[in-house]
Amino acid sequence: MATEEIRAVGGETVRERLLAKAIDLFNRKGYAATTVREIIQAAGVTKPVLYYYFGNKEGIFLELMREGVKRLEQIMESARFAKGSSVERVIDLCERAFTLFQENIPLVRLMNSIYYGPPQGAPFFDFDAFQTKFHEVFIQLVGEGVAAGELRQGNIQDMAWAILGALNVSMDVELSHPELSIGRDGLVRVLKLIFEGVASKPKRGGSNNHA
Amino acid sequence: MATEEIRAVGGETVRERLLAKAIDLFNRKGYAATTVREIIQAAGVTKPVLYYYFGNKEGIFLELMREGVKRLEQIMESARFAKGSSVERVIDLCERAFTLFQENIPLVRLMNSIYYGPPQGAPFFDFDAFQTKFHEVFIQLVGEGVAAGELRQGNIQDMAWAILGALNVSMDVELSHPELSIGRDGLVRVLKLIFEGVASKPKRGGSNNHA
Repeated sequence: MATEEIRAVGGETVRERLLAKAIDLFNRKGYAATTVREIIQAAGVTKPVLYYYFGNKEGIFLELMREGVKRLEQIMESARFAKGSSVERVIDLCERAFTLFQENIPLVRLMNSIYYGPPQGAPFFDFDAFQTKFHEVFIQLVGEGVAAGELRQGNIQDMAWAILGALNVSMDVELSHPELSIGRDGLVRVLKLIFEGVASKPKRGGSNNHA
Repeated sequence: MATEEIRAVGGETVRERLLAKAIDLFNRKGYAATTVREIIQAAGVTKPVLYYYFGNKEGIFLELMREGVKRLEQIMESARFAKGSSVERVIDLCERAFTLFQENIPLVRLMNSIYYGPPQGAPFFDFDAFQTKFHEVFIQLVGEGVAAGELRQGNIQDMAWAILGALNVSMDVELSHPELSIGRDGLVRVLKLIFEGVASKPKRGGSNNHA
Protein backbone atom coordinates (compact mmCIF):
# COMPACT_ATOMS: atom_id res chain seq x y z
CA MET A 1 0.00 0.00 0.00
CA ALA A 2 1.32 3.40 -0.97
CA THR A 3 -0.70 5.38 1.54
CA GLU A 4 2.33 5.97 3.71
CA GLU A 5 3.45 8.49 1.14
CA ILE A 6 0.19 10.37 0.95
CA ARG A 7 0.48 13.81 2.47
CA ALA A 8 -2.38 16.17 3.17
CA VAL A 9 -2.25 19.94 3.04
CA GLY A 10 0.41 21.34 5.37
CA GLY A 11 2.63 18.29 5.18
CA GLU A 12 0.50 16.22 7.58
CA THR A 13 0.56 12.56 6.67
CA VAL A 14 -2.60 10.50 6.39
CA ARG A 15 -1.53 8.65 9.50
CA GLU A 16 -1.15 11.90 11.46
CA ARG A 17 -4.47 13.12 10.15
CA LEU A 18 -6.22 9.97 11.32
CA LEU A 19 -4.69 10.38 14.78
CA ALA A 20 -5.70 14.04 14.99
CA LYS A 21 -9.27 13.36 13.87
CA ALA A 22 -9.56 10.46 16.30
CA ILE A 23 -8.48 12.67 19.23
CA ASP A 24 -10.96 15.31 18.17
CA LEU A 25 -13.87 12.85 17.92
CA PHE A 26 -12.99 10.97 21.11
CA ASN A 27 -12.92 14.30 22.94
CA ARG A 28 -16.16 15.61 21.53
CA LYS A 29 -18.25 12.43 21.60
CA GLY A 30 -16.37 10.13 23.96
CA TYR A 31 -14.46 7.02 22.98
CA ALA A 32 -17.45 4.68 23.19
CA ALA A 33 -19.71 6.78 20.98
CA THR A 34 -17.09 7.33 18.25
CA THR A 35 -17.16 4.95 15.29
CA VAL A 36 -14.43 3.99 12.83
CA ARG A 37 -16.70 5.36 10.10
CA GLU A 38 -16.69 8.82 11.70
CA ILE A 39 -12.93 8.82 12.02
CA ILE A 40 -12.30 7.88 8.41
CA GLN A 41 -14.91 10.34 7.16
CA ALA A 42 -13.32 13.15 9.17
CA ALA A 43 -9.89 12.21 7.81
CA GLY A 44 -11.21 11.80 4.27
CA VAL A 45 -9.89 8.25 3.83
CA THR A 46 -11.38 4.79 3.34
CA LYS A 47 -11.63 2.07 5.98
CA PRO A 48 -8.70 -0.02 4.67
CA VAL A 49 -6.41 2.98 5.26
CA LEU A 50 -7.27 3.09 8.97
CA TYR A 51 -7.00 -0.69 9.20
CA TYR A 52 -3.62 -0.58 7.51
CA TYR A 53 -2.14 1.84 10.02
CA PHE A 54 -3.94 0.93 13.23
CA GLY A 55 -5.93 -2.27 12.84
CA ASN A 56 -9.09 -0.88 14.46
CA LYS A 57 -10.46 1.72 16.87
CA GLU A 58 -8.61 0.16 19.80
CA GLY A 59 -5.41 0.31 17.78
CA ILE A 60 -5.70 3.99 17.00
CA PHE A 61 -6.49 4.73 20.65
CA LEU A 62 -3.50 2.79 21.94
CA GLU A 63 -1.21 4.42 19.39
CA LEU A 64 -2.32 7.84 20.64
CA MET A 65 -1.55 6.89 24.24
CA ARG A 66 1.80 5.34 23.36
CA GLU A 67 2.94 8.30 21.28
CA GLY A 68 2.08 10.75 24.05
CA VAL A 69 3.89 8.73 26.67
CA LYS A 70 6.89 8.06 24.44
CA ARG A 71 7.59 11.76 23.98
CA LEU A 72 7.44 12.40 27.70
CA GLU A 73 9.71 9.41 28.32
CA GLN A 74 12.32 10.88 26.02
CA ILE A 75 12.25 14.09 28.05
CA MET A 76 12.50 12.11 31.28
CA GLU A 77 15.46 10.11 30.03
CA SER A 78 17.38 13.17 28.96
CA ALA A 79 16.71 14.79 32.36
CA ARG A 80 18.12 11.78 34.20
CA PHE A 81 21.45 12.09 32.47
CA ALA A 82 21.57 15.86 31.91
CA LYS A 83 24.40 18.00 33.25
CA GLY A 84 23.88 20.85 35.65
CA SER A 85 22.70 21.33 39.18
CA SER A 86 19.66 19.56 40.54
CA VAL A 87 17.67 22.79 40.54
CA GLU A 88 18.59 23.45 36.92
CA ARG A 89 17.66 19.96 35.87
CA VAL A 90 14.36 19.97 37.76
CA ILE A 91 13.39 23.31 36.24
CA ASP A 92 14.49 22.18 32.79
CA LEU A 93 12.50 18.94 33.05
CA CYS A 94 9.40 20.85 34.19
CA GLU A 95 9.76 23.38 31.37
CA ARG A 96 10.13 20.67 28.78
CA ALA A 97 7.22 18.65 30.17
CA PHE A 98 5.09 21.79 30.19
CA THR A 99 6.02 22.63 26.60
CA LEU A 100 5.16 19.11 25.48
CA PHE A 101 1.86 19.45 27.33
CA GLN A 102 1.10 22.75 25.58
CA GLU A 103 1.79 21.17 22.22
CA ASN A 104 -0.55 18.27 22.96
CA ILE A 105 -3.51 19.71 24.82
CA PRO A 106 -6.18 17.74 22.91
CA LEU A 107 -4.29 14.52 23.66
CA VAL A 108 -4.00 15.42 27.35
CA ARG A 109 -7.74 16.11 27.44
CA LEU A 110 -8.34 12.67 25.99
CA MET A 111 -6.02 11.05 28.53
CA ASN A 112 -7.84 12.85 31.36
CA SER A 113 -11.17 11.80 29.97
CA ILE A 114 -10.14 8.14 29.91
CA TYR A 115 -8.36 8.30 33.24
CA TYR A 116 -11.00 10.20 35.21
CA GLY A 117 -14.09 9.52 33.13
CA PRO A 118 -16.61 6.70 33.37
CA PRO A 119 -15.78 3.35 31.81
CA GLN A 120 -15.89 3.88 28.05
CA GLY A 121 -14.74 0.51 26.80
CA ALA A 122 -11.33 1.79 25.76
CA PRO A 123 -8.53 -0.80 25.88
CA PHE A 124 -6.40 -0.81 29.01
CA PHE A 125 -3.48 1.56 29.05
CA ASP A 126 -1.23 1.65 32.08
CA PHE A 127 -1.30 5.32 33.04
CA ASP A 128 -0.42 4.46 36.63
CA ALA A 129 2.86 2.77 35.77
CA PHE A 130 3.80 5.76 33.69
CA GLN A 131 2.92 8.26 36.42
CA THR A 132 5.02 6.26 38.86
CA LYS A 133 7.98 6.46 36.48
CA PHE A 134 7.56 10.20 36.12
CA HIS A 135 7.43 10.58 39.89
CA GLU A 136 10.60 8.50 40.24
CA VAL A 137 12.58 10.80 37.95
CA PHE A 138 11.77 13.70 40.27
CA ILE A 139 12.71 11.61 43.28
CA GLN A 140 16.05 10.89 41.61
CA LEU A 141 16.77 14.52 40.74
CA VAL A 142 15.79 15.76 44.20
CA GLY A 143 17.81 12.97 45.83
CA GLU A 144 20.88 14.01 43.86
CA GLY A 145 20.29 17.61 44.90
CA VAL A 146 20.14 16.64 48.57
CA ALA A 147 23.25 14.45 48.24
CA ALA A 148 25.10 17.37 46.63
CA GLY A 149 24.06 19.73 49.42
CA GLU A 150 22.15 21.84 46.96
CA LEU A 151 18.78 21.01 48.48
CA ARG A 152 18.04 20.84 52.18
CA GLN A 153 18.37 17.67 54.18
CA GLY A 154 14.89 16.34 54.56
CA ASN A 155 12.13 14.23 53.12
CA ILE A 156 12.92 13.75 49.44
CA GLN A 157 9.37 12.61 48.71
CA ASP A 158 7.95 15.81 50.19
CA MET A 159 10.27 17.95 48.09
CA ALA A 160 9.34 16.02 44.95
CA TRP A 161 5.63 16.52 45.73
CA ALA A 162 6.07 20.26 46.19
CA ILE A 163 7.70 20.45 42.74
CA LEU A 164 5.24 18.10 41.06
CA GLY A 165 2.38 20.10 42.59
CA ALA A 166 3.59 23.23 40.79
CA LEU A 167 3.89 21.36 37.49
CA ASN A 168 0.45 19.78 37.86
CA VAL A 169 -1.31 22.96 38.84
CA SER A 170 0.23 24.87 35.94
CA MET A 171 -1.20 22.26 33.57
CA ASP A 172 -4.59 22.07 35.29
CA VAL A 173 -5.01 25.82 35.10
CA GLU A 174 -4.10 25.83 31.42
CA LEU A 175 -6.76 23.20 30.73
CA SER A 176 -9.52 24.45 32.98
CA HIS A 177 -8.93 28.16 33.51
CA PRO A 178 -6.93 29.53 30.59
CA GLU A 179 -7.91 33.03 31.77
CA LEU A 180 -5.67 32.42 34.82
CA SER A 181 -2.88 30.80 32.77
CA ILE A 182 0.45 30.52 34.56
CA GLY A 183 2.35 29.64 31.40
CA ARG A 184 5.86 28.24 31.19
CA ASP A 185 7.53 31.35 32.54
CA GLY A 186 5.08 31.44 35.43
CA LEU A 187 5.79 27.80 36.17
CA VAL A 188 9.50 28.58 36.40
CA ARG A 189 8.74 31.46 38.77
CA VAL A 190 6.59 29.20 40.97
CA LEU A 191 9.32 26.57 41.04
CA LYS A 192 11.91 29.14 42.10
CA LEU A 193 9.57 30.26 44.87
CA ILE A 194 9.38 26.65 46.05
CA PHE A 195 13.15 26.38 46.07
CA GLU A 196 13.63 29.69 47.83
CA GLY A 197 10.54 29.63 50.08
CA VAL A 198 7.39 31.70 50.21
CA ALA A 199 7.95 32.97 53.74
CA SER A 200 9.64 36.33 54.18
CA LYS A 201 13.27 36.43 55.24
CA PRO A 202 14.84 36.76 57.73
CA LYS A 203 12.85 34.05 59.48
CA ARG A 204 11.22 34.89 62.75
CA GLY A 205 12.65 32.25 65.12
CA GLY A 206 11.56 28.68 64.71
CA SER A 207 9.08 26.85 62.58
CA ASN A 208 5.57 27.81 61.54
CA ASN A 209 3.47 26.43 64.32
CA HIS A 210 -0.19 26.23 63.63
CA ALA A 211 -3.22 25.46 65.71
CA MET B 1 -45.10 11.65 52.75
CA ALA B 2 -43.51 10.25 55.87
CA THR B 3 -40.34 8.96 54.21
CA GLU B 4 -38.28 11.77 55.67
CA GLU B 5 -38.43 9.93 58.93
CA ILE B 6 -37.37 6.58 57.59
CA ARG B 7 -33.90 5.62 58.72
CA ALA B 8 -31.87 2.76 57.40
CA VAL B 9 -29.36 0.69 59.35
CA GLY B 10 -26.66 2.86 60.88
CA GLY B 11 -28.82 5.96 61.10
CA GLU B 12 -28.53 6.79 57.42
CA THR B 13 -31.69 8.45 56.13
CA VAL B 14 -33.40 7.28 52.95
CA ARG B 15 -32.36 10.55 51.34
CA GLU B 16 -28.69 9.94 52.24
CA ARG B 17 -28.94 6.36 51.02
CA LEU B 18 -30.30 7.48 47.66
CA LEU B 19 -27.44 9.97 47.32
CA ALA B 20 -24.82 7.36 48.23
CA LYS B 21 -26.22 4.77 45.83
CA ALA B 22 -26.44 7.33 43.06
CA ILE B 23 -22.76 8.26 43.51
CA ASP B 24 -21.81 4.61 43.45
CA LEU B 25 -23.77 3.87 40.26
CA PHE B 26 -22.69 7.05 38.48
CA ASN B 27 -19.07 6.14 39.24
CA ARG B 28 -19.33 2.52 38.17
CA LYS B 29 -21.50 2.90 35.07
CA GLY B 30 -21.28 6.58 34.22
CA TYR B 31 -24.05 9.13 34.59
CA ALA B 32 -25.59 8.50 31.17
CA ALA B 33 -25.86 4.74 31.60
CA THR B 34 -27.38 4.89 35.10
CA THR B 35 -31.17 4.73 35.33
CA VAL B 36 -33.53 5.93 38.05
CA ARG B 37 -34.67 2.31 38.34
CA GLU B 38 -31.15 1.19 39.25
CA ILE B 39 -30.78 3.91 41.86
CA ILE B 40 -34.06 3.10 43.60
CA GLN B 41 -33.37 -0.63 43.48
CA ALA B 42 -29.94 -0.15 45.02
CA ALA B 43 -31.45 2.05 47.74
CA GLY B 44 -34.37 -0.32 48.28
CA VAL B 45 -37.07 2.31 47.78
CA THR B 46 -39.81 2.98 45.24
CA LYS B 47 -39.74 5.58 42.49
CA PRO B 48 -41.99 8.11 44.24
CA VAL B 49 -39.47 8.30 47.08
CA LEU B 50 -36.71 9.44 44.71
CA TYR B 51 -39.10 11.83 42.97
CA TYR B 52 -40.16 13.24 46.33
CA TYR B 53 -36.63 14.13 47.36
CA PHE B 54 -34.96 14.95 44.06
CA GLY B 55 -37.51 15.18 41.24
CA ASN B 56 -35.48 13.05 38.81
CA LYS B 57 -31.98 11.83 37.91
CA GLU B 58 -30.83 15.37 37.09
CA GLY B 59 -32.11 16.49 40.50
CA ILE B 60 -30.18 13.87 42.42
CA PHE B 61 -27.04 14.68 40.45
CA LEU B 62 -27.31 18.42 41.07
CA GLU B 63 -27.98 17.84 44.76
CA LEU B 64 -24.78 15.79 45.00
CA MET B 65 -22.76 18.56 43.37
CA ARG B 66 -24.35 21.28 45.50
CA GLU B 67 -23.80 19.43 48.76
CA GLY B 68 -20.14 18.85 47.99
CA VAL B 69 -19.53 22.44 47.06
CA LYS B 70 -21.53 23.78 50.01
CA ARG B 71 -19.33 21.99 52.53
CA LEU B 72 -16.16 23.34 50.93
CA GLU B 73 -17.67 26.82 50.86
CA GLN B 74 -18.26 26.67 54.59
CA ILE B 75 -14.60 25.84 55.11
CA MET B 76 -13.56 28.66 52.80
CA GLU B 77 -15.74 31.16 54.59
CA SER B 78 -14.39 30.26 57.99
CA ALA B 79 -10.81 30.56 56.64
CA ARG B 80 -11.45 34.07 55.34
CA PHE B 81 -12.39 35.33 58.76
CA ALA B 82 -10.25 33.07 60.94
CA LYS B 83 -7.73 34.43 63.39
CA GLY B 84 -4.04 33.67 63.24
CA SER B 85 -1.16 34.31 60.89
CA SER B 86 -1.48 33.87 57.14
CA VAL B 87 0.66 30.72 57.26
CA GLU B 88 -1.51 29.23 59.99
CA ARG B 89 -4.71 30.02 58.14
CA VAL B 90 -3.43 28.68 54.82
CA ILE B 91 -2.29 25.45 56.45
CA ASP B 92 -5.54 25.15 58.37
CA LEU B 93 -7.63 25.71 55.23
CA CYS B 94 -5.61 23.10 53.32
CA GLU B 95 -5.94 20.60 56.17
CA ARG B 96 -9.68 21.09 56.38
CA ALA B 97 -10.13 20.90 52.61
CA PHE B 98 -8.05 17.73 52.54
CA THR B 99 -10.06 16.16 55.37
CA LEU B 100 -13.32 16.99 53.57
CA PHE B 101 -11.85 15.45 50.42
CA GLN B 102 -10.90 12.27 52.29
CA GLU B 103 -14.43 11.99 53.67
CA ASN B 104 -15.94 12.35 50.19
CA ILE B 105 -13.69 10.46 47.82
CA PRO B 106 -16.52 8.81 45.84
CA LEU B 107 -18.11 12.23 45.32
CA VAL B 108 -14.78 13.70 44.19
CA ARG B 109 -14.37 10.83 41.73
CA LEU B 110 -17.80 11.61 40.33
CA MET B 111 -16.96 15.31 40.03
CA ASN B 112 -13.72 14.46 38.21
CA SER B 113 -15.58 12.09 35.92
CA ILE B 114 -18.08 14.79 34.95
CA TYR B 115 -15.46 17.51 34.71
CA TYR B 116 -12.82 15.63 32.76
CA GLY B 117 -14.90 12.89 31.17
CA PRO B 118 -16.70 12.83 27.85
CA PRO B 119 -20.12 14.51 27.58
CA GLN B 120 -22.53 12.35 29.60
CA GLY B 121 -25.69 14.39 29.40
CA ALA B 122 -25.46 15.50 33.02
CA PRO B 123 -27.05 18.88 33.77
CA PHE B 124 -24.69 21.84 33.80
CA PHE B 125 -22.95 22.54 37.06
CA ASP B 126 -20.58 25.49 37.30
CA PHE B 127 -17.38 23.88 38.56
CA ASP B 128 -15.31 26.66 37.06
CA ALA B 129 -16.97 29.41 39.06
CA PHE B 130 -16.43 27.41 42.19
CA GLN B 131 -12.75 26.73 41.44
CA THR B 132 -12.26 30.44 40.82
CA LYS B 133 -13.78 31.21 44.23
CA PHE B 134 -11.50 28.68 45.91
CA HIS B 135 -8.48 30.19 44.19
CA GLU B 136 -9.52 33.66 45.34
CA VAL B 137 -9.58 32.64 48.99
CA PHE B 138 -5.93 31.60 48.68
CA ILE B 139 -5.12 34.85 46.91
CA GLN B 140 -6.73 36.71 49.81
CA LEU B 141 -4.86 34.78 52.51
CA VAL B 142 -1.52 35.10 50.72
CA GLY B 143 -2.15 38.78 50.07
CA GLU B 144 -2.79 39.35 53.76
CA GLY B 145 0.41 37.47 54.57
CA VAL B 146 2.43 39.67 52.24
CA ALA B 147 0.81 42.83 53.60
CA ALA B 148 1.68 41.70 57.14
CA GLY B 149 5.30 41.04 56.17
CA GLU B 150 4.88 37.39 56.98
CA LEU B 151 5.29 36.29 53.36
CA ARG B 152 7.86 37.66 50.98
CA GLN B 153 7.17 40.60 48.71
CA GLY B 154 6.43 39.15 45.33
CA ASN B 155 3.85 37.75 43.01
CA ILE B 156 0.85 36.78 45.14
CA GLN B 157 -0.58 34.63 42.33
CA ASP B 158 2.64 32.62 42.13
CA MET B 159 2.63 31.98 45.87
CA ALA B 160 -1.01 30.91 45.76
CA TRP B 161 -0.23 28.49 42.92
CA ALA B 162 2.65 26.94 44.81
CA ILE B 163 0.32 26.29 47.76
CA LEU B 164 -2.60 25.10 45.64
CA GLY B 165 -0.23 22.79 43.77
CA ALA B 166 0.63 21.02 47.01
CA LEU B 167 -3.05 20.66 47.94
CA ASN B 168 -3.98 19.38 44.47
CA VAL B 169 -1.15 16.90 44.24
CA SER B 170 -1.92 15.49 47.68
CA MET B 171 -5.48 14.81 46.52
CA ASP B 172 -4.47 13.44 43.11
CA VAL B 173 -2.07 11.00 44.71
CA GLU B 174 -4.72 9.84 47.14
CA LEU B 175 -7.11 9.15 44.27
CA SER B 176 -4.72 7.64 41.77
CA HIS B 177 -1.77 6.28 43.73
CA PRO B 178 -2.90 5.47 47.27
CA GLU B 179 0.31 3.46 47.65
CA LEU B 180 2.20 6.78 47.52
CA SER B 181 -0.32 8.56 49.77
CA ILE B 182 0.91 11.84 51.23
CA GLY B 183 -1.93 12.11 53.72
CA ARG B 184 -2.91 15.16 55.71
CA ASP B 185 0.26 15.23 57.79
CA GLY B 186 2.34 14.91 54.64
CA LEU B 187 0.43 17.76 53.05
CA VAL B 188 1.27 19.96 56.05
CA ARG B 189 4.96 18.99 55.72
CA VAL B 190 4.94 19.84 52.01
CA LEU B 191 3.28 23.18 52.71
CA LYS B 192 5.89 24.04 55.33
CA LEU B 193 8.61 23.16 52.82
CA ILE B 194 7.03 25.59 50.37
CA PHE B 195 6.99 28.31 52.99
CA GLU B 196 10.55 27.66 54.08
CA GLY B 197 12.05 26.67 50.72
CA VAL B 198 13.43 23.45 49.34
CA ALA B 199 16.88 24.83 48.66
CA SER B 200 19.53 24.32 51.31
CA LYS B 201 20.49 27.20 53.57
CA PRO B 202 22.55 29.33 53.73
CA LYS B 203 21.88 30.41 50.17
CA ARG B 204 24.77 30.49 47.77
CA GLY B 205 24.67 34.10 46.51
CA GLY B 206 21.94 35.07 44.10
CA SER B 207 19.09 33.27 42.45
CA ASN B 208 18.96 29.87 40.88
CA ASN B 209 20.01 30.57 37.32
CA HIS B 210 19.30 27.85 34.86
CA ALA B 211 20.25 27.26 31.26
